[in-house]
Amino acid sequence: MTEMSFDSSFAYTEEPLESAAALERRLRAIGAARYHDLHPFHDMLHGGRLDLGQVQAWALNRWYYQSSIPIKDAVVLSRFRDRETRMEWRHRIEDHDGSPGDEGGLDRWLALTTGLGLDEGYVTSARGILPATRFAVDAYVSFVGTRSPLEAIASSLTELFAPNLHERRISGMLAHYDFVHPGIMTYFQRRLGQAPRDAGFALDYVKTHARTPEARALVCEALIFKTDVLWVQLDALYHAYVTGHPPPGAFRPEGAA
Amino acid sequence: MTEMSFDSSFAYTEEPLESAAALERRLRAIGAARYHDLHPFHDMLHGGRLDLGQVQAWALNRWYYQSSIPIKDAVVLSRFRDRETRMEWRHRIEDHDGSPGDEGGLDRWLALTTGLGLDEGYVTSARGILPATRFAVDAYVSFVGTRSPLEAIASSLTELFAPNLHERRISGMLAHYDFVHPGIMTYFQRRLGQAPRDAGFALDYVKTHARTPEARALVCEALIFKTDVLWVQLDALYHAYVTGHPPPGAFRPEGAA
Repeated sequence: MTEMSFDSSFAYTEEPLESAAALERRLRAIGAARYHDLHPFHDMLHGGRLDLGQVQAWALNRWYYQSSIPIKDAVVLSRFRDRETRMEWRHRIEDHDGSPGDEGGLDRWLALTTGLGLDEGYVTSARGILPATRFAVDAYVSFVGTRSPLEAIASSLTELFAPNLHERRISGMLAHYDFVHPGIMTYFQRRLGQAPRDAGFALDYVKTHARTPEARALVCEALIFKTDVLWVQLDALYHAYVTGHPPPGAFRPEGAA
Repeated sequence: MTEMSFDSSFAYTEEPLESAAALERRLRAIGAARYHDLHPFHDMLHGGRLDLGQVQAWALNRWYYQSSIPIKDAVVLSRFRDRETRMEWRHRIEDHDGSPGDEGGLDRWLALTTGLGLDEGYVTSARGILPATRFAVDAYVSFVGTRSPLEAIASSLTELFAPNLHERRISGMLAHYDFVHPGIMTYFQRRLGQAPRDAGFALDYVKTHARTPEARALVCEALIFKTDVLWVQLDALYHAYVTGHPPPGAFRPEGAA
């Protein structure tokens, strides 16, 4: 519906996007400047500075993101007439949804929320999530359905930066919280193997298929959009549960004011 | 794309929605509990407790909402095969867009942003807005295009509660800020007359066309959705410009850190 423009006020390298190599350098610079590993909520989460209710709020809201990913990936898959790309993309849906008798990422996320003491029915209803979470996640699903197939794939490129974040999350949360144990952190453990494969495919795809500086700029804007989708979710958690302004109708941790 | 459910954890009257009169009572209760006149950012704005940069950030972000309203209203209009409803709805687009030689609400909003010292090209580019603003506003445009025509109209019902807010805004901002004068507040002055007409039509429409308790519940959910759209925008402003965590790429007031 809306146009976005590359935000030139933000200090990336200004190298022109004349080649696939220049595109990759720009993408990595965007990640270094805007990926949500830089967000102060993550510092608090990984450094043991949140209480159980705040970690619950994070896991509850993130459920809505996680549970929308196979939907998002189905929309991406639907954009390709080319059967090879569809076949390549298909495993992402399976990774998250699993199969009968074979757990997927969503089961592993529910192991986390249940392990943190949240009722599974409440979590999957998404009734208590922050409206900002819903709007950001829905914007992501909408983006991949309305932008070009190239931009749809490019918006997945945050996966390039996920493994480092997940490693810090696993070690930090296990070290700092007595309510966290390895059995509820399997989602992140498993993604350490899955994300690099997915990110590698997407990076090769955009490097091959974005053949002009204009197309490469759209790839960069798609990644910026996606970093915004992730950042907004943490800003909303911080405002609601660190600053202490949960909006009407949102989850309130037990024992909170 | 997503389902929403009526949030029964929030304390409205639990009167069943057996009649149009019961629906109106429920809608007014939702407004009393969730309309953004209750938001602490508005207390600060109207009470003179913001600085110029914070008021600029509010006006800049709100431009994106304002400038999306005629687009939203065109989508609403497009949902109706019935010519009478289209003719009734049409003036809303004109109210905001104006006509050649006849200013509209968007001109009046730009008089505000320019009067506050913001460059018109920067404002209309929407480059500096908060991503949360974009996601919330885009969710509103998407909502009216994908939900039923009844829900599309119902989501405009926040207009019922706007005049009181606008009156407080006009008097509060004129009293408290030396950078505010009547010439830049004409948007709100004009809406005092427009909003009641629009809200009256929408309220009559939903009371007439929602004929079952289930349809009336959808009307209420549409209003709750819309209060979330408004509330999220102020939460994001508060987090960025009061708590002091502007996200990457967003507007930074001159002189701010």
